[in-house]
Amino acid sequence: TVNGDRLWDSLERMAQIGPGIAGGNNRQTLTDADAEGRALFQRWCEDAGMTMGLDRMGNMFMRHEGTEPDLDPVYIGSHLDTQPTGGRYDGVLGVLAGLEVIRSIRNLGIRTRRPIVVTNWTNEEGARFAPAMLASGVFAGVLTEDYANSRVDADGLTFGAELDRIGWRGTEAPGDRRIHAMFEYHIEQGPILEAEGKDIGVVTHGQGLWWLQVTLTGKDAHTGSTPMAMRVNAGLGMARIIEAVHRIAMDHQPDAVGAVGQANVWPNSRNVIPGRAVFTIDFRSPDLAKLTSMRSRLEAEAADIASELGLGLEIEPVGHFDPVTFDDTLVERVRAAADRLGHSRMDIVSGAGHDACWIAKVAPTVMIMCPCVDGLSHNEAEEITPAWAKAGADVLLHAVLDTAGI
Amino acid sequence: TVNGDRLWDSLERMAQIGPGIAGGNNRQTLTDADAEGRALFQRWCEDAGMTMGLDRMGNMFMRHEGTEPDLDPVYIGSHLDTQPTGGRYDGVLGVLAGLEVIRSIRNLGIRTRRPIVVTNWTNEEGARFAPAMLASGVFAGVLTEDYANSRVDADGLTFGAELDRIGWRGTEAPGDRRIHAMFEYHIEQGPILEAEGKDIGVVTHGQGLWWLQVTLTGKDAHTGSTPMAMRVNAGLGMARIIEAVHRIAMDHQPDAVGAVGQANVWPNSRNVIPGRAVFTIDFRSPDLAKLTSMRSRLEAEAADIASELGLGLEIEPVGHFDPVTFDDTLVERVRAAADRLGHSRMDIVSGAGHDACWIAKVAPTVMIMCPCVDGLSHNEAEEITPAWAKAGADVLLHAVLDTAGI
Ligand SMILES: NC(=O)NCCC(=O)O
Ligand SMILES: NC(=O)NCCC(=O)O
Repeated sequence: TVNGDRLWDSLERMAQIGPGIAGGNNRQTLTDADAEGRALFQRWCEDAGMTMGLDRMGNMFMRHEGTEPDLDPVYIGSHLDTQPTGGRYDGVLGVLAGLEVIRSIRNLGIRTRRPIVVTNWTNEEGARFAPAMLASGVFAGVLTEDYANSRVDADGLTFGAELDRIGWRGTEAPGDRRIHAMFEYHIEQGPILEAEGKDIGVVTHGQGLWWLQVTLTGKDAHTGSTPMAMRVNAGLGMARIIEAVHRIAMDHQPDAVGAVGQANVWPNSRNVIPGRAVFTIDFRSPDLAKLTSMRSRLEAEAADIASELGLGLEIEPVGHFDPVTFDDTLVERVRAAADRLGHSRMDIVSGAGHDACWIAKVAPTVMIMCPCVDGLSHNEAEEITPAWAKAGADVLLHAVLDTAGI
Repeated sequence: TVNGDRLWDSLERMAQIGPGIAGGNNRQTLTDADAEGRALFQRWCEDAGMTMGLDRMGNMFMRHEGTEPDLDPVYIGSHLDTQPTGGRYDGVLGVLAGLEVIRSIRNLGIRTRRPIVVTNWTNEEGARFAPAMLASGVFAGVLTEDYANSRVDADGLTFGAELDRIGWRGTEAPGDRRIHAMFEYHIEQGPILEAEGKDIGVVTHGQGLWWLQVTLTGKDAHTGSTPMAMRVNAGLGMARIIEAVHRIAMDHQPDAVGAVGQANVWPNSRNVIPGRAVFTIDFRSPDLAKLTSMRSRLEAEAADIASELGLGLEIEPVGHFDPVTFDDTLVERVRAAADRLGHSRMDIVSGAGHDACWIAKVAPTVMIMCPCVDGLSHNEAEEITPAWAKAGADVLLHAVLDTAGI
């Protein structure tokens, strides 16, 4: 098994770079703090005998050599970037657990047949540069380099210029690597494992997602002097669509979720009927038919709601991926590793998007999850226990060794 | 009748003080622009032979002497302050039409028995310092001077300090005046007169109002990885209460309105279920029983909605006035004046709050309304025609002369 204290210590040390305001982290992608975190990770890896590859998206590939260097490597990867008010473990756990796997292998004097490459994927969070999972998406050939380089942050800076500025653009063409298998170890970011009292989530599927942005156009008018029959109330339309999103998700149970995260009305004044509303819808399901059905039912119901209220309606798709089925053989290998180590486990569907979801398009891929307290994530109060962190890392070690061969 | 061109010219000249960004006005209360507008109005009044009284709230009382100076005067009043993105006519029309009445009386060589006092009430809009109709509320004894002086704007400046700064605090005690009758002429700010094709609205009643501010507390969580059953979605609660406000208002038809003007969720991020929602409710009716019933039904339904979703609920009343019945004799006098002048007219209920609603508590009061294009107000695009402006001013002239005696 791995050295849990060393893993925890590395997590604590990485958390000192880009500290948040409430105990978490603000180490957003392509900031100076990101560069500092990358340099620390590089040093730790090189101290463990690894060598670095770097592609044009800033994806870091830290290689531990195998006894048969020509075999396709086994990859372990996640991300070191955080949300602006992010936790210490979202992404970071998966990268540093990969490093800990290599450190443990060396300490134990084990040599693997296949090389092992620990990867830090650039801009998983998408908080600074939308969309999320940007550089793994380019690696998987789903997004283009030009698209990625032209993404703009809130200050008008581009991904490409910021990657150059922090000095972490490599020369390797993204995607120009053979991958025998890829493992991503991540905190659950949801409450199921803790509620079920399981140490390990064996991730069999990743949900697909539709992000829709809705704009309703009505007419600003005085709340007092405009009769009910003459109102064109964009806020009321928004309310009905928020309810419809919920009802549609409930009608697709189990294995479907839906919610409105952003909601804004204009002019947002006590005594003015909202003349415009802009809000975002997030539908997810591991079942493609359900995902498609939720989107089309929403579009139909929103059109009815808008026409009944006399509102202009625009629905713009702003994010999408299909459901992912992770590799059966790797899933079975993770289950077996957990059983061998005596950890309680359950199959689980990843509710969030992860780099593994894109890599699954180009290589056999699987994810391992550990619980997080109260399911809280994307929040500085995100918390896990050292025992949870170690249990997942042990399962990762065993499954990787089974895959890399000794 | 009045000189419509002169009235329109005065409206145009006043609109040059505190111009807006889109053709309207930003002449918010107690700004330098407000001071400039007051000084211009004072000069125009003094040129018309009037003398100024000024109370400790900055209310301006421009007196045109009567042949029997000891009789209680007839008041004509409204406000010169505007919304931050306000129109040229909301309030201003009523003040400058009062001035035009005096100018016309002088031109026509008419002497009235009673004095006539044209009044500019301070801070009707309440946009900079809440609540609306602040200084007329103090005059009517509903609000205290201390309360008014301590109101704070968004920059932390107080009403009292700003009134002193612009040099428009008088020495007269607010409310220390006898009023024989008060007339307020105002644009409708709603679409009824235009839709019905009437020149003149004879305002028989003013709606009462309840402003409620609602805070719902749920739990921020990941939109993807949190199962539907584990969500505590404050945005969904807000949506249901917005719908309830609408349904309750519809259930109280006719003569009742309700809407949510401000709506905000936190953290307002695409992939986070809102953990908090804060929004404002505006219920109005000319019928006190309906107004009370709407508030209590909303409180009961909101409690049910919050408890069903597991949300914390707080409802804070932030504004209130009872329905107003304007003076029967004055109402009849306005109707008669419109008929005499050959203007089409209809009885109407004021949907908005006005200084006249407070003054009606201490003196016989009535309002006259003219149409506005598309019912649009609290918007720089607010528009009326010169013919509409003149028709109402003519009715004002006749009704005032009938009341002041010649
Ligand atoms: N893991 C994660 O939260 N990724 C961001 C994209 C998403 O909302 O799923
Ligand atoms: N006339 C006017 O819009 N006053 C502001 C208060 C209200 O909302 O009625």
